[in-house]
Amino acid sequence: MIKLLQFPLCPFSRRARMTMDEYNIAYELLEEHPWAWNEEFLTLNPAANLPVLVENKNTILCGIGPIAEYFDETTAKSSISHISLYLGTAVNRAEVRRLIEWFDHKFNREVTELIVSEKIYKRFITVSEGGGSPDMQVIRAGMQNLDYHLKYIDHLLIDRHWLAGEHMSQADFAAAAHLSCLDYTSDVPWNEFLQVKEWYVRIKSRPSFRGILEDKMLGFHPSAHYADLDF
Amino acid sequence: MIKLLQFPLCPFSRRARMTMDEYNIAYELLEEHPWAWNEEFLTLNPAANLPVLVENKNTILCGIGPIAEYFDETTAKSSISHISLYLGTAVNRAEVRRLIEWFDHKFNREVTELIVSEKIYKRFITVSEGGGSPDMQVIRAGMQNLDYHLKYIDHLLIDRHWLAGEHMSQADFAAAAHLSCLDYTSDVPWNEFLQVKEWYVRIKSRPSFRGILEDKMLGFHPSAHYADLDF
Repeated sequence: MIKLLQFPLCPFSRRARMTMDEYNIAYELLEEHPWAWNEEFLTLNPAANLPVLVENKNTILCGIGPIAEYFDETTAKSSISHISLYLGTAVNRAEVRRLIEWFDHKFNREVTELIVSEKIYKRFITVSEGGGSPDMQVIRAGMQNLDYHLKYIDHLLIDRHWLAGEHMSQADFAAAAHLSCLDYTSDVPWNEFLQVKEWYVRIKSRPSFRGILEDKMLGFHPSAHYADLDF
Repeated sequence: MIKLLQFPLCPFSRRARMTMDEYNIAYELLEEHPWAWNEEFLTLNPAANLPVLVENKNTILCGIGPIAEYFDETTAKSSISHISLYLGTAVNRAEVRRLIEWFDHKFNREVTELIVSEKIYKRFITVSEGGGSPDMQVIRAGMQNLDYHLKYIDHLLIDRHWLAGEHMSQADFAAAAHLSCLDYTSDVPWNEFLQVKEWYVRIKSRPSFRGILEDKMLGFHPSAHYADLDF
């Protein structure tokens, strides 16, 4: 069976899980802590980022970008029951990929890395290696940036049903994966962004989101409404 | 005609130019300075990164990832004379995309942003906005990281003709685009990495590389061997 090396509150790992669940692909989760510099893991992926998918010794896929495109090429197109998560014309697909980069790089750097890293990742890392108590100033900067990003999502939804257009796509999964981590730590002001909340409820209600809603980090409980579909 | 908003020493802009030249697509270059926060540019691309391709009002592509995939979908597959730059099986293509991420994110953050930003970009930015003289400590850190990355390229080339395998791909273009910027500023120790140099000469000799070799930044001359194919 496919093995997915991942971390529960890593947005990239979450998108890999959502993608495989959406396509009904069976896999086994293995928790990996990239900050521990585990040698076996570095041999698989010298870039040391998550997720890493291991199907057999010739099929080792590193990083969510390659993994999501791989399943689109091998699964979505080979079965009429599967819908591509990069649906549409080449221009539509470029828009999906633009928004994936927006969330996986810009949003990640400006929001997720500031909030989730401070609150969650630093608990696993020793003080001498940059871990320890969260820095409230960093978290506040992340919260300010989050407001700007939620406004941008809201702006996209004015004339689009899904973030990249008429079809649900990897752009929605990328955004939802990041927001789900921030929702775990109670940091999304949903009630100030009702249109964004309505979109998130649609994603959250999908069967492919269930696994993520069951995640529990030892010693850090999710927000009260985290797994609630009607929050 | 297609307009490409770009900056000469931006590795992502360079890869877009190489890709279009490789596919014989005509375009016009427009120099853009994202740090100037030009409003018209931000309307086209709110993420404010380069390159941005404008074909008409419905075809505006932002970022090298979406642009490179777009040309692979629209051009490489529609003509027998064009070869895909993501050639091979889905697993091969995942390897191409893994290496693109390696260079456009890891290499960029660890090397290009430290060296090229310090030496080139800071000349265009006022001191109050973070510009000014280059910080030699930052450049030295970038040089140390470059050594590690050149060793990694060297390692890949032990049993591969091109970085991602047997075929030239966007992975080679991504790596070469970054290295070409560092070669402009004379920062690549080619003679310590002869196998890497041999690979780079192969890329540098392609007609699609010619435009880049003609680049000249006002007030900052390229290294003596920059445009030399036999250096």
